[in-house]
Amino acid sequence: MNLDSVKKFLEKKGETASMVDGLPPKFLEPLTLSSLHVDLIEPGRVVCSMKIPPRLLNGGNSLHGGATATLVDVVGSAAIPTVGYSSASTGVSVEINVSYLDAAYVDEEIEIEARALRVGKAVAVVSVEFRKKETGKVFAQGRHTKYLVLPSKI
Amino acid sequence: MNLDSVKKFLEKKGETASMVDGLPPKFLEPLTLSSLHVDLIEPGRVVCSMKIPPRLLNGGNSLHGGATATLVDVVGSAAIPTVGYSSASTGVSVEINVSYLDAAYVDEEIEIEARALRVGKAVAVVSVEFRKKETGKVFAQGRHTKYLVLPSKI
Amino acid sequence: MNLDSVKKFLEKKGETASMVDGLPPKFLEPLTLSSLHVDLIEPGRVVCSMKIPPRLLNGGNSLHGGATATLVDVVGSAAIPTVGYSSASTGVSVEINVSYLDAAYVDEEIEIEARALRVGKAVAVVSVEFRKKETGKVFAQGRHTKYLVLPSKI
Amino acid sequence: MNLDSVKKFLEKKGETASMVDGLPPKFLEPLTLSSLHVDLIEPGRVVCSMKIPPRLLNGGNSLHGGATATLVDVVGSAAIPTVGYSSASTGVSVEINVSYLDAAYVDEEIEIEARALRVGKAVAVVSVEFRKKETGKVFAQGRHTKYLVLPSKI
Repeated sequence: MNLDSVKKFLEKKGETASMVDGLPPKFLEPLTLSSLHVDLIEPGRVVCSMKIPPRLLNGGNSLHGGATATLVDVVGSAAIPTVGYSSASTGVSVEINVSYLDAAYVDEEIEIEARALRVGKAVAVVSVEFRKKETGKVFAQGRHTKYLVLPSKI
Repeated sequence: MNLDSVKKFLEKKGETASMVDGLPPKFLEPLTLSSLHVDLIEPGRVVCSMKIPPRLLNGGNSLHGGATATLVDVVGSAAIPTVGYSSASTGVSVEINVSYLDAAYVDEEIEIEARALRVGKAVAVVSVEFRKKETGKVFAQGRHTKYLVLPSKI
Repeated sequence: MNLDSVKKFLEKKGETASMVDGLPPKFLEPLTLSSLHVDLIEPGRVVCSMKIPPRLLNGGNSLHGGATATLVDVVGSAAIPTVGYSSASTGVSVEINVSYLDAAYVDEEIEIEARALRVGKAVAVVSVEFRKKETGKVFAQGRHTKYLVLPSKI
Repeated sequence: MNLDSVKKFLEKKGETASMVDGLPPKFLEPLTLSSLHVDLIEPGRVVCSMKIPPRLLNGGNSLHGGATATLVDVVGSAAIPTVGYSSASTGVSVEINVSYLDAAYVDEEIEIEARALRVGKAVAVVSVEFRKKETGKVFAQGRHTKYLVLPSKI
């Protein structure tokens, strides 16, 4: 156990960190989504594709687990209004889970498919699957549960 | 259902998006962690604090669910070497889940506590709890499961 | 809040409870599986069907959430050896999650499909979907993560 | 791969299976809870204890993962009315997850603690932790998310 190395692992310092301060608000979505292309939208289903950009890698040079989870959140949310749920918002997140099955590397073409399992009056659940385009292999699968009424009522 | 608005929701364009292209590799961690301070590291437990920065907000002006999930990933990982697991890496993610209990807003002081539930020879599980400093109220709870041997053996 | 009613809710007493003492060991699987029929087994995929029996209902007269979770566990496990994993055991459970989308009632015909997302050397992940036969509607979806090497090595 | 053995694994036949047919409705809860003792109920927290009975074991002679999940469901539900939620029901399950950290064996004394993380107007989330009494070691941790309004509104 080396406490200093744990501290260093968490407290990112240096040049890159200093760039962060100048960034605009709500920057996580542009960072995660700017390479995303929407291929198909139909009732209950959204399919996107993406070439994994270097900025979303982790220390092990594969797609960061936090990026995958953010995509489960955002692409999963996008599937909700496609089934006729009409609201200014897509609800608030209640639960997100992700299983990581394999690593995905920079410049790999991936496909992200969100499928609404249920969009009720109050609760929506969306399954989100990540596949490698070349092989069709699923490399991550997640689920996103949202509460659809105004946050004040949760 | 308005397909165009779903497409716009996902495909972030405009000024902010164009900033993304110039960013260095592996930028998700600096973005998420640059406000983080490590308060305590002891065997099996890491406690951090953070003042929520505007850049980690979502469209609803609260801490983005993807940011919370990324913190479950990274702070959870940091708890593993504290129990004596000695390796260059902290393993590969197998599963991450998060329950979102309440919104947290910009400039709120939060505390993130990672507690290793198990660090075995091959599998580690860490529970990560997010609390508001002022009230002690838990606003998110997650779990991170990792496989500890080299990725090639997974 | 009525503490007595909480206590009564948990501590099942009376005639039914006294029947439990005479039951043989390892009774949860026979209880849950005795109505199950295997319809299809192919590499990476197991499909079963079942007519929901009264004994698996909850207090609200629908399929008990614990029964669904037990089926995610057992039917999910059954998908692992279909992809060539050869071992006396199907590994040990690391994580199970289930989303409940709709209630299923007594005598409803349901279909349970387990799909192996990954069966690696050490970690297997199986997705399990529950559908109503009449409508094809998904009423629950779960995931089961197992560690495949001997328990002593976990 | 041996399809016959997968089929046999799932379709429990024989003496024990034939006992199942004579059982009364709603038998899963008595089966799982009849050894449970409630030790403490206070606002937001329920603590139970249990000596693991042979009938809840799996094929590997440890507490069945489905039994653990059923206890997350039921003991988790019991924590909701303790925080003042007044309703004839404790809501409907939306999500259950469980991490299995270690095996627990027959006759081991265990403690199950349910802690309400949130009981709002519509959504409740409860964390459930399983510990071995002798060592205090956590051997499973789960979370149960429920929707609190009448099922018809979900």
